[in-house]
Amino acid sequence: MTPPALRTREDCARRDAEDPLAPLREAFALPEGVVYLDGNSLGALPVATAARVRGVIADEWGNGLIGSWNAAGWMDLPRRVGDRIAPLLGAGAGEVLVADSTSVNLYKVLHVALGLARSRDPARAVIVSERGNFPTDLYIAQSVADACGATLRQVEPDAVVAALDASVAVLLLTHVDYRSGRRHDLRAVQRAASFAGVLVVWDLSHSAGAVPLSLVDDAADFAVGCGYKFLNGGPGAPGYVWAHPRHLEHIEAQGLVQPLSGWIGHRTPFAFAADYAPASGIARFQCGTPPVLALAALDCGVATLRAADALGGVPALHAKAQALIALFIALVDEHCDALGLALRTPRDADRRGSQVSFAHATGGYAIVQALIARGVVGDFRAPDLVRFGIAPVYTRFVDVWDAVAHLRDVLASGEWRDPKFEVRAPVT
Amino acid sequence: MTPPALRTREDCARRDAEDPLAPLREAFALPEGVVYLDGNSLGALPVATAARVRGVIADEWGNGLIGSWNAAGWMDLPRRVGDRIAPLLGAGAGEVLVADSTSVNLYKVLHVALGLARSRDPARAVIVSERGNFPTDLYIAQSVADACGATLRQVEPDAVVAALDASVAVLLLTHVDYRSGRRHDLRAVQRAASFAGVLVVWDLSHSAGAVPLSLVDDAADFAVGCGYKFLNGGPGAPGYVWAHPRHLEHIEAQGLVQPLSGWIGHRTPFAFAADYAPASGIARFQCGTPPVLALAALDCGVATLRAADALGGVPALHAKAQALIALFIALVDEHCDALGLALRTPRDADRRGSQVSFAHATGGYAIVQALIARGVVGDFRAPDLVRFGIAPVYTRFVDVWDAVAHLRDVLASGEWRDPKFEVRAPVT
Repeated sequence: MTPPALRTREDCARRDAEDPLAPLREAFALPEGVVYLDGNSLGALPVATAARVRGVIADEWGNGLIGSWNAAGWMDLPRRVGDRIAPLLGAGAGEVLVADSTSVNLYKVLHVALGLARSRDPARAVIVSERGNFPTDLYIAQSVADACGATLRQVEPDAVVAALDASVAVLLLTHVDYRSGRRHDLRAVQRAASFAGVLVVWDLSHSAGAVPLSLVDDAADFAVGCGYKFLNGGPGAPGYVWAHPRHLEHIEAQGLVQPLSGWIGHRTPFAFAADYAPASGIARFQCGTPPVLALAALDCGVATLRAADALGGVPALHAKAQALIALFIALVDEHCDALGLALRTPRDADRRGSQVSFAHATGGYAIVQALIARGVVGDFRAPDLVRFGIAPVYTRFVDVWDAVAHLRDVLASGEWRDPKFEVRAPVT
Repeated sequence: MTPPALRTREDCARRDAEDPLAPLREAFALPEGVVYLDGNSLGALPVATAARVRGVIADEWGNGLIGSWNAAGWMDLPRRVGDRIAPLLGAGAGEVLVADSTSVNLYKVLHVALGLARSRDPARAVIVSERGNFPTDLYIAQSVADACGATLRQVEPDAVVAALDASVAVLLLTHVDYRSGRRHDLRAVQRAASFAGVLVVWDLSHSAGAVPLSLVDDAADFAVGCGYKFLNGGPGAPGYVWAHPRHLEHIEAQGLVQPLSGWIGHRTPFAFAADYAPASGIARFQCGTPPVLALAALDCGVATLRAADALGGVPALHAKAQALIALFIALVDEHCDALGLALRTPRDADRRGSQVSFAHATGGYAIVQALIARGVVGDFRAPDLVRFGIAPVYTRFVDVWDAVAHLRDVLASGEWRDPKFEVRAPVT
């Protein structure tokens, strides 16, 4: 999908002008003079969010007060926002719940998945994940393994399927790697895992909204993900959780309860019963009181993304992202040759998500800072990666052109060697 | 502290006019014509919140984008909001962390408290709590007990101290009971528990901001609480967690790790290390990415309450609340006699929190609905309680007068018997 016609910035501008998805950008409040390529860390602000949250604050909270739990449907928000996310995952209505953070949801789901796997075969006592997975996934998996007398086994990404022997209960995999952007073949891995009797928990944080997903059709087992990247839910937006409907029945039949048994996950929270009895379906993954302001912002972010539905939806967004990434790689190949960058993202569009990453032996952090000073926002991922997220709902072909032009200048001029770009901020 | 002078509504209005705390009400956006007595379920909206959240959305997220994690101090918000809450708890700077929900924080703290208790005496394997405690506390305690091979023992509220024998590791107690408003003597119970070798986890959801607290001076062990009641943080605001500094050292020395080991609780989250190593101090109770919008709203809610600092702070608020409750009880005694209400809140101001509750044999739910229809918002708590929360920062003496006048009318006229008031909403 290399776009050979884009030889100049004007070519890119022409391509943007012809892009049927281009108008979607207008729904975002992007600052002037910034090329924002960090939507896979924090999605941009939708124009509609401020008014929506203001309405929740002033009208629903301020005027409706406690009555808004019913009158404004606050209690249903976790399910309603979940329903809005569901088509992005290839999931059905009522199957997705928004709650807590990705880390907390992983904890719940891993407990349940492990319990379910062991209810079928008590001898299985291993959680497999890949070395280099996002840290929170490994930390939480280790915690769950410790709590349940299981073992966490980390294997190389290419060895995941081969590792699924008869000792394995659960495979925890991030669909798109946060560093390289390498994408697992969800359907193939899921199929192999199911064949091996292993349940898979998918972390879709870097997938949902940017990569086509068909969880139900692919007979996936469980999924979690975050709301603040491609879903544009804002900083620290709540996460979501999904379980295949076929499992929920078994979970109920087995009496499996996730350990964060807070009152909102109770079947009848307002009966204030003395004993915990989990709600039916995905609602059993709720815990505390729903974070209404954050849910409203996430709802708005997802709705803004879902405006793409009329223009081909995620498949169209994904195709555009792949064209943007192909352009990025082609331009770096051509203009940044011998400047020390090594591509870490697959050249094969079928094997990557919605980002492109380059290693640089010594300058990764400083290069990112020098680019930010020029208004090109990517990010650094330790130890050596310069990462650019492609959010096709607002990223343009000229943005990629400009980003690579700045990248070339920063590298060719040695600008990044300025010591000021090595000053580390707490969050990098 | 009964105010015998308040014989008429005019007396109440005069009392309000003389109240040095009365101006604090202006900082809240209360709707016209509503007597809001449900601030212990959802605190009212501070006037400042809408602008603060709008700024976070438009400026920090919209313009600052990912850079706001550093530039706008988002990463520090859990600690900064914690610092703002700390004086309300009698805790020091750096001791309080805002994160997740009360339920999730309880789960973390109970795990750590149980681990700490057992590191001292492995034979202790019981968590004691009181029958009738808020359900989430009991559900989570049961879950932690199950996970750790411990037992949850529920005892009558008056039997708590007597139950602290050598088998008990942890006592989980809610300072102010959500139904009756009965308040434990925190210092005395804590002292008895410490003497018995038991660690106490206090749930301060119905206390903080309304009842004077001195956790450090009282040598309390652990505390959690919610942000959406007297702290005015908005619907589903995050919770907070506190541990006495003397314990944090031991927790670190013992290598005790709370099980929700998400990446933000790591010592160096942005090193993306393969192994979990908890942060020092209270920060080890962090888990996922901080919910920035919700934290900003809570910060604003607490700041609005802290405006009372210059007027005597929580002790002054508490004294006013007790005068309001005494008036409420005196008026019900006088005007609602033989109308079927039975006081469930202690008459002794030293034994109650910041609410007043009455049982009604058959009409609790309908009475509350009839009052809401008249603009007096209290709430029903199953099975039979009519509950009124007193938020002294905005509740006036005339509000209490009006509430009791409506209550008398609703009861005396039989208005509450209208079948429409028995239609149950999902959230009651």
